[in-house]
Amino acid sequence: MSKERVQELRGQIDTINMQLLELLSQRARVVSEIGKIHTQLGVEHYDPQREAEMLTTLEMANQGPFPNETIKALFREIFRASMALEEQQAKAKIKVQRTSPDQKTIITMPDGTELGNSHFQIIAGPCAVESFEQMDSTAAELAKRGVKFLRGMAYKPRTSPYEFQGMGEPGLQIARQVADKYGMYIVSEIMDASQIPMMSDYVDIFWIGARNMQNSFLLRAIGKQSKPVILKRGLAATLEEFMYAAEYIVSGGNPNVILIERGIRTYEKSTRNMLDIGGAMVLKLESHLPVVIDISHSAGRRDIAIPMARVAKASGADGMMVEVHPNPPVAMSDAKQQLYFEQFHAVMDALEAMDADKALA
Amino acid sequence: MSKERVQELRGQIDTINMQLLELLSQRARVVSEIGKIHTQLGVEHYDPQREAEMLTTLEMANQGPFPNETIKALFREIFRASMALEEQQAKAKIKVQRTSPDQKTIITMPDGTELGNSHFQIIAGPCAVESFEQMDSTAAELAKRGVKFLRGMAYKPRTSPYEFQGMGEPGLQIARQVADKYGMYIVSEIMDASQIPMMSDYVDIFWIGARNMQNSFLLRAIGKQSKPVILKRGLAATLEEFMYAAEYIVSGGNPNVILIERGIRTYEKSTRNMLDIGGAMVLKLESHLPVVIDISHSAGRRDIAIPMARVAKASGADGMMVEVHPNPPVAMSDAKQQLYFEQFHAVMDALEAMDADKALA
Amino acid sequence: MSKERVQELRGQIDTINMQLLELLSQRARVVSEIGKIHTQLGVEHYDPQREAEMLTTLEMANQGPFPNETIKALFREIFRASMALEEQQAKAKIKVQRTSPDQKTIITMPDGTELGNSHFQIIAGPCAVESFEQMDSTAAELAKRGVKFLRGMAYKPRTSPYEFQGMGEPGLQIARQVADKYGMYIVSEIMDASQIPMMSDYVDIFWIGARNMQNSFLLRAIGKQSKPVILKRGLAATLEEFMYAAEYIVSGGNPNVILIERGIRTYEKSTRNMLDIGGAMVLKLESHLPVVIDISHSAGRRDIAIPMARVAKASGADGMMVEVHPNPPVAMSDAKQQLYFEQFHAVMDALEAMDADKALA
Amino acid sequence: MSKERVQELRGQIDTINMQLLELLSQRARVVSEIGKIHTQLGVEHYDPQREAEMLTTLEMANQGPFPNETIKALFREIFRASMALEEQQAKAKIKVQRTSPDQKTIITMPDGTELGNSHFQIIAGPCAVESFEQMDSTAAELAKRGVKFLRGMAYKPRTSPYEFQGMGEPGLQIARQVADKYGMYIVSEIMDASQIPMMSDYVDIFWIGARNMQNSFLLRAIGKQSKPVILKRGLAATLEEFMYAAEYIVSGGNPNVILIERGIRTYEKSTRNMLDIGGAMVLKLESHLPVVIDISHSAGRRDIAIPMARVAKASGADGMMVEVHPNPPVAMSDAKQQLYFEQFHAVMDALEAMDADKALA
Repeated sequence: MSKERVQELRGQIDTINMQLLELLSQRARVVSEIGKIHTQLGVEHYDPQREAEMLTTLEMANQGPFPNETIKALFREIFRASMALEEQQAKAKIKVQRTSPDQKTIITMPDGTELGNSHFQIIAGPCAVESFEQMDSTAAELAKRGVKFLRGMAYKPRTSPYEFQGMGEPGLQIARQVADKYGMYIVSEIMDASQIPMMSDYVDIFWIGARNMQNSFLLRAIGKQSKPVILKRGLAATLEEFMYAAEYIVSGGNPNVILIERGIRTYEKSTRNMLDIGGAMVLKLESHLPVVIDISHSAGRRDIAIPMARVAKASGADGMMVEVHPNPPVAMSDAKQQLYFEQFHAVMDALEAMDADKALA
Repeated sequence: MSKERVQELRGQIDTINMQLLELLSQRARVVSEIGKIHTQLGVEHYDPQREAEMLTTLEMANQGPFPNETIKALFREIFRASMALEEQQAKAKIKVQRTSPDQKTIITMPDGTELGNSHFQIIAGPCAVESFEQMDSTAAELAKRGVKFLRGMAYKPRTSPYEFQGMGEPGLQIARQVADKYGMYIVSEIMDASQIPMMSDYVDIFWIGARNMQNSFLLRAIGKQSKPVILKRGLAATLEEFMYAAEYIVSGGNPNVILIERGIRTYEKSTRNMLDIGGAMVLKLESHLPVVIDISHSAGRRDIAIPMARVAKASGADGMMVEVHPNPPVAMSDAKQQLYFEQFHAVMDALEAMDADKALA
Repeated sequence: MSKERVQELRGQIDTINMQLLELLSQRARVVSEIGKIHTQLGVEHYDPQREAEMLTTLEMANQGPFPNETIKALFREIFRASMALEEQQAKAKIKVQRTSPDQKTIITMPDGTELGNSHFQIIAGPCAVESFEQMDSTAAELAKRGVKFLRGMAYKPRTSPYEFQGMGEPGLQIARQVADKYGMYIVSEIMDASQIPMMSDYVDIFWIGARNMQNSFLLRAIGKQSKPVILKRGLAATLEEFMYAAEYIVSGGNPNVILIERGIRTYEKSTRNMLDIGGAMVLKLESHLPVVIDISHSAGRRDIAIPMARVAKASGADGMMVEVHPNPPVAMSDAKQQLYFEQFHAVMDALEAMDADKALA
Repeated sequence: MSKERVQELRGQIDTINMQLLELLSQRARVVSEIGKIHTQLGVEHYDPQREAEMLTTLEMANQGPFPNETIKALFREIFRASMALEEQQAKAKIKVQRTSPDQKTIITMPDGTELGNSHFQIIAGPCAVESFEQMDSTAAELAKRGVKFLRGMAYKPRTSPYEFQGMGEPGLQIARQVADKYGMYIVSEIMDASQIPMMSDYVDIFWIGARNMQNSFLLRAIGKQSKPVILKRGLAATLEEFMYAAEYIVSGGNPNVILIERGIRTYEKSTRNMLDIGGAMVLKLESHLPVVIDISHSAGRRDIAIPMARVAKASGADGMMVEVHPNPPVAMSDAKQQLYFEQFHAVMDALEAMDADKALA
């Protein structure tokens, strides 16, 4: 008998659900109309005081069985949903968010090289430009494997003001000269908006480092020029913050942003940072921007470079970044993680062996 | 004119809000009746399949403007609220949760010493029992300052199996003898349920370490005996998990649980762990159990012991735990953080100076 | 001229270096002899008081130019090196540490199935045993892809004491029956040493969960029985702690330990935990034990299962663990991360496509 | 007899120790002379190639019992110590490091108000300038309690480009007007070096936010002007990185830097960030700069403001920062953490009650 009663009560629930649905939809339509008027009037849509008043009214009217806290929580959800609807209609925004499964941003370089399409691209080179010979010998090696994107870093953000801060403009001149010799593109870190005009003469792709990921002045400024931008995830940035940082650039007018996952800082010290490989996959799901894996700053060590590279490719990322130096132990920065030339070739061999893998085609 | 229209629309919203409130309350009453029948029938209240069906029905009926995802999200909140209501009525549970601002669990020892009431209690002693002399000299020093709770640790959970694992039962005998001599109570770590009968002969308060915070077999077993239990927060436990771990003990029948905040593991290595002092305050807000601050394992260093102790007291905690050793550099464990006797006295002097502080009265 | 002086001074440095080397070696030989005597006498090798005295003597003798702090730091390094030498000679220990590049522990099951050798093994099944039908239908599906290791979890460690805690022994009976039907092996979580005799009747491989990774009583007990053991990394465990936890088991006599990397807890919430894929590679470098990647508890979501599986395989791990359930949304635990059957097959297809990859052969 | 042999061997160790000390000191003197010549020649002191050669020579000469790895590690320590000695002599640097226990930087404002001396200073005000009325009513309330430092934030670094970014220069005008009315000083966030000239007209103390802590361009630029600077610790910055960021400013010529500890990002979400109260103590030990505790961004909630303030004061910090707003729920940012006026007064009452505490005098 009690089972029958349950059936009966469930029927009542079903009816109430439909009535709730109807009321919620009706409410959404009214809110939507208010939103349109507010847009015309140029009034901020979000009105916390009005919300506070509605909650107080509901609280006073509530006679249970739900406690007031629950009623307020439920209505806050309803308010939020209405708000979201309104915002969505008003702006259809977050430009970096993927809107369909096959939407993708492809960065196309002058010679047709693409980043963000099917080919797994390699960005490589030393941590910093140190001399012509260093850049030239490295680029020669990279060119043998078809690498098109050369690190030409002339400004190094360092923890201590007394550490090597990069060669500056002379370093950019070297990088440009070498890149031209081997038909490569220069990626180079910019640290301040004031550098844009000068650096634009040398650089093909701007690079914004982890420490500047939320430097909104720089993000806005770089969004107003037209060269592609590589944006690194901050050391403790959430994926949401990372995507919003890219949004600063894209909303400024420059759609060519590449996201680099480079590991976050955790308690574990066996690797320099902890590569968020699952996060890189989520980025690919949620955004249409190309995603590149930095296997050097994440690992911070050379001895796992081959499996790291394999993992980067297997993850579905659009490319990887790896530091290569003619003589890593004497490098002026990141000496522990830069690859020797022969290690670089071993990494490339491992990646090529994966091309037989049909699932990646 | 559009402002008047907004007023009019807001009136409609107010009406819809009241109708929603009425429907939600009605829904809650029906769900509640179903819940009672299910309790009688011994049927699990949560029925995900029924929920899935209701969501599908709503999705099919939904004609906007809310997208299906939003409708499902809102109804999931409504389901959850009803469920919570039911559970609350059925169990009035989470026993460790504070239900009124002045509810507090006070641990009263045989001589009337209280932990969890107005007096800021000190739990002190060496990291581990090493010898009678070591315990005796330490307890003598602690007794001078009225310390009532003596660390008498005879089982040490260690990272490596080759490290000192504690003296075992002979250590407990020493601890008991010394405690009796100075009129103190022994707190001692238990590592396995099988130790309860033997340890009960020596120990006044059981201690469950950070590594065992979620060892539910041990938690349940300790909940079935009557001595008070000190429970340490795990190295990466959330406050919610910490409180649920206490709930395992309390729901087993033993209400006398003391929570120890001892810092969590983060990337920062200047202190051994990062004391979550704000978390300790939140614990005091959310639970009626006594909260004690471990200033030794959080700092992991002696040179900030005085401000750490001051902070522990200022935070509103019920006490603090500090390691004291006659000769810290030769201690068999935690050599860097145990205090010399003179440092212990300096810490106690600093705490006494705070007693003039009227706000702590 | 000053360049010549530098050359001359460098010659002096070279001579001093050789003298230092000779003295350090001589010192090591003497320490080694003391160590042997101490071993015979059964005396603890490490004597902090003696060290403290030596440091004081050196401090008093030091006349610069090094400050006392530097002298003490250098000698502490020398003491530590001597100590390490002694320990190494005395025990030749840490059994789980790899001693040669090709050393590997291979777990061989009765039918010859190997874990830790060239084949990438799959451990799969529902989060928990819920019914015979659930286990049977899942195992049937897994068997189609040659899976040999079936999750047969009957004891679930849960955050709340009010959540489903597993079916207990009846669940083990179901698991055994189903495993036998499909020629599979049961892996099942053990939570307390007292369960060993009973569980041994049903289980092929014991599983120790993240919450118990440092439950040294359980580790020791499981080290004294002979079935293989899967050990999960704790939520905030370092790789070093993880390897030491395995050492507790291996040093007890059971060499058949499998390490599972399952992600650590971080601030980032887009995945349930953060898979430490670089850490898994370091484990493979440093230990000879098999390493398995848990793609379910790390991701905590189904929609990135394919790239996660690919990454697990590409990383060089010995296998992966994945949760599969006939109807995930109604699962009694981990509903969000268990795969539908069709998703499981897609994952297996992706892994098979990688077999064409010559580098993994 | 073996005990006597140990005594004899220990005598040999003591002799070797003295010989090692003599050789190390001699080596340091030679290195020091080379260093002076290199300084004259303008040659970089650190020469990794020379080091590599010395290590190779030692490795070839080594005949045990130390393994080559140990010898190399020990000599690397010796090289590093020599290097450190040289650097120390050459630069006597890290200016922000405390060199004596009572060294302290005191920021003195025009009216004699001091920050960094005995008085616990309060920096307060709304998260952002929103209107004249909002600033005026808040400042009036703060003035009643003698607050001298007013938040006058007109540029807000926000996660999303679509959130309120501050009023800009009009906001600074309001802040200046209100500060002058109540005899207060304005602290205001600067986001880019280009803002220095304009902001200097309005602002008394520059504020560099957590997101810009390692924006070395901004740090250098702010180091070249003379107004005091408040520097916030980055979300995942180590104390070492924090101090080096301050060093960028101080080494540029501006010694008046105030460090703000504001909590780091962890997995725990019961507070917005985790206040590193132990870290603040370590900063006070290691640096002579004033340290201020931000109780608003660390807690991210109002209900623990009183114990947080008490803890800030008890920790030995030089002051605290707290957000106060006339109507927090309608604030345009940080609505959850800003205090109501009455809460602010309750906090001040609690702090005043602590003044009776003799230990803080």
